[in-house]
Amino acid sequence: MSTKRRGGRSRPMVSEISRSQRYRQLKHPFDPQTIFSSDEIVSIHNTALKVIQTLGIKTLLPEARDIFKSAGARVKDEMVFIGEDIVASALKTAPSSIILSAANPENVLTYKNGALIFSPGAGCPNIFDRERGRRPGDLNAYIETIKLHQSFDVIHKLGPSAEPQDIATHLRHYSTMQAQMEFSDKPMFVYARGTKQTQDSFKMIRLGLNLSEEEWNGGVWGTTVINSNSPRMLDRPMAQGIIDFARANQMTIITPFCLAGAMAPITVSGALTLQHAEALVGITLAQLVKSGAPVSYGGFASNVDMKSGSPAFGTPEHIKMQIGSGQLARHIKLPWRSAAGSASNIADSQGTTENMSGIWGSLMANASLTIHAAGWLEGGLTFGYEKYITDIEALQTVAELCTKTEATEAEIGFDALREVEPGGHFFAAKHTMDRYQTAFYSPLVSDLSNNGTWLKAGAKTAYERATDIWKNTLENYEQPETGKEVSDRLANFIEKRSSEGGAPIIE
Amino acid sequence: MSTKRRGGRSRPMVSEISRSQRYRQLKHPFDPQTIFSSDEIVSIHNTALKVIQTLGIKTLLPEARDIFKSAGARVKDEMVFIGEDIVASALKTAPSSIILSAANPENVLTYKNGALIFSPGAGCPNIFDRERGRRPGDLNAYIETIKLHQSFDVIHKLGPSAEPQDIATHLRHYSTMQAQMEFSDKPMFVYARGTKQTQDSFKMIRLGLNLSEEEWNGGVWGTTVINSNSPRMLDRPMAQGIIDFARANQMTIITPFCLAGAMAPITVSGALTLQHAEALVGITLAQLVKSGAPVSYGGFASNVDMKSGSPAFGTPEHIKMQIGSGQLARHIKLPWRSAAGSASNIADSQGTTENMSGIWGSLMANASLTIHAAGWLEGGLTFGYEKYITDIEALQTVAELCTKTEATEAEIGFDALREVEPGGHFFAAKHTMDRYQTAFYSPLVSDLSNNGTWLKAGAKTAYERATDIWKNTLENYEQPETGKEVSDRLANFIEKRSSEGGAPIIE
Repeated sequence: MSTKRRGGRSRPMVSEISRSQRYRQLKHPFDPQTIFSSDEIVSIHNTALKVIQTLGIKTLLPEARDIFKSAGARVKDEMVFIGEDIVASALKTAPSSIILSAANPENVLTYKNGALIFSPGAGCPNIFDRERGRRPGDLNAYIETIKLHQSFDVIHKLGPSAEPQDIATHLRHYSTMQAQMEFSDKPMFVYARGTKQTQDSFKMIRLGLNLSEEEWNGGVWGTTVINSNSPRMLDRPMAQGIIDFARANQMTIITPFCLAGAMAPITVSGALTLQHAEALVGITLAQLVKSGAPVSYGGFASNVDMKSGSPAFGTPEHIKMQIGSGQLARHIKLPWRSAAGSASNIADSQGTTENMSGIWGSLMANASLTIHAAGWLEGGLTFGYEKYITDIEALQTVAELCTKTEATEAEIGFDALREVEPGGHFFAAKHTMDRYQTAFYSPLVSDLSNNGTWLKAGAKTAYERATDIWKNTLENYEQPETGKEVSDRLANFIEKRSSEGGAPIIE
Repeated sequence: MSTKRRGGRSRPMVSEISRSQRYRQLKHPFDPQTIFSSDEIVSIHNTALKVIQTLGIKTLLPEARDIFKSAGARVKDEMVFIGEDIVASALKTAPSSIILSAANPENVLTYKNGALIFSPGAGCPNIFDRERGRRPGDLNAYIETIKLHQSFDVIHKLGPSAEPQDIATHLRHYSTMQAQMEFSDKPMFVYARGTKQTQDSFKMIRLGLNLSEEEWNGGVWGTTVINSNSPRMLDRPMAQGIIDFARANQMTIITPFCLAGAMAPITVSGALTLQHAEALVGITLAQLVKSGAPVSYGGFASNVDMKSGSPAFGTPEHIKMQIGSGQLARHIKLPWRSAAGSASNIADSQGTTENMSGIWGSLMANASLTIHAAGWLEGGLTFGYEKYITDIEALQTVAELCTKTEATEAEIGFDALREVEPGGHFFAAKHTMDRYQTAFYSPLVSDLSNNGTWLKAGAKTAYERATDIWKNTLENYEQPETGKEVSDRLANFIEKRSSEGGAPIIE
């Protein structure tokens, strides 16, 4: 849990403070793994180029078709056929390292291969917790989830966990942008729901954080996710988002959502070929709009469940596609996002198995960013507060692996080994006493008490214990300094824009 | 679930049959990872040698002390000080590859570095399931758990999951050995609880499986786990076990149980130094008894929970110790065992987080054998039937990653990509139709149905669904052919030995 807040209360245990803070700016602890040979990766890459060039991408936004056409692509009706030279040029200018700015300098991220960034479950129309039940997302839940994300250092970047459906869509971005800046100081998420909303959002960042023109222009303050409509279609808002963000030097994460057997071929290599083709098209569009625009490769491929037809997460196929996506991203030398997530209806062992499979898949794949790393239920239809807490435990466990394990002479402790008699114990050894406060990760949810103690205390499951934890976290939440003037700074702008009719979502 | 049984019913889905069978004889899908540099590993190894040579190991069994002394070790009272040349010689003769025999040739294992072998939660005095509650282990539970292990191909080797406390200790091995052979055809576990019990057990294997002298002598039919009494003590039954098993050419797995901060130094490198020292002593004893005796390096180090003082599992420190153990095992070029496990009191998300951390730790560490891979609750005090089922899901997910992912032209499916219109779907594509029955892993416990359907069906958690699964598994269990004559073959021997008073456990 984040503890170093300006003016905040200090906590009693030094160990927890230092451990929490070291969950920031993580680097991958493990080497990237492979499922395909280099030849196979080249073959998938080349097949994707062939898809783009010969089968084409249906591009619904006329402006996007014009941009492709100007670059030399063939356009026929809504279909765009892009030559591989155009794609190759785009890959040369797409940046391999992107600084994600944040109100708090300690939360600034470098988005590049090797970075290990977690962002929370996002895009959920519903929310759930054990006390209030399952209900449509609202602004209160949006704000509560931002407060949770601010409170855990292992969540590095914000995401729109709960959709605030109590706010009309043409005004919603005023509330969500304000809430992110008011209640957090981490890198922000901006929905790409039409040029007017995007421009409003960017303006609000400048106003809310009191950024100079230079500070705004020099940094990536907002990122968004662009989901192509697989197979082979780029719809209007998504194409518009790529254009708007590239022009403003803000980051798009191009993420085809390729469900093998449904909107993508049923094989891992087939689904990845389609994902790769669509991602390359989005990256190319961004670079054609502005050379060097911050843009990320994205992979969020999994399979459908053959019994229900539903999207499945954390399956072996999901993990394989993560690893294959990592190979493809490294092939084109770009940082990239992956995703964990869960289809479970509740924070049970299914939900944990699924999400942890995705987390470890991201580790094997060396994903730069793992979205939906905590809190997703029902394949993203619901954000679960308890699920979020139990998933945080898995993330913190992984974050601990990023620290160097020492094996100096002092650390090995031959003297302690000499000091303790055969069959004795190390509880009172100096080597132990010097280190016991900081030696081990302190669990967030796990209860290590024995069966009798556990039964007497009410036999609570981790799911039940998680309720107290998110409630305590919200109770102990402290607003970041940078958030305190945000609502004053934004009041006039929001009032004016609201009175002008806000900004409609484009379909 | 295992389906290829002689004379067994065939199952409807071809896909399930082939998938289950390919969970046998797994090889690690990922490269071994590191937490220490090569220099640090050398430093830990050398410090361990220094511990053995200068601090010594308390060895309670006189015969073991004599064996060490004959080899040139210095012995003073119960303390044994072994020179590094003696250890080095032992490491030269310890085998790097061991065939683990089984009644069914399809279940024979090659125990070596690179192999990925899972065995179930073991050594539990209590058992738990949702219908019958928590209770002391008995023979019925022992048999039921053997039937479960026989039914899942991803469980490669037997382990004594439930301790049958309704059978007197001097007769218990007659029941457990018979049950393993009668109800399973996988590699067996033999407790090392004194020479007489060990000899009885070995004799029963020869009789029960009707092995010729040649077959018995040529194979490793029984393995046991030797836990040293950390720190630096080898007790009587354990030393006796190493001697008895080595003489009979059966396998011991030398496993110090080093809990950092309690019976081992509080640091990862310190606990591993102690583990390494004790394991080297056990391996050396085995080799001194019989050069080339099958013996395995073992690591089961974790930390204590600082709140409760209880052993913790699946912690970051546990994972780090797994990875470090793998480095040490590879340094001495021996196959080795690790362990997963859970301290949770119930099959909840805590239990799953802990066990999956251990499973993935084993993958990162490239452990040859992962013990306690499914079913452990309460740090091994209880074997949970539901926990077993939910853990099997995680193991099967991992097993799926061991298969080659194809990226041939046919598999990529450019024709399917051409066939499906932009924005369309692949449900009816020939590429899909040709593969849909076998394309994806079919979950064991996971329920992918949507929230409405799930609620209508009773809103069961994975934990609750697991009850039906273990019950169905036991109902559909089929005895292996090799088990059918076992009780007849053993009847006279057991009757005779029982009437002679059985064989007491040595303390």
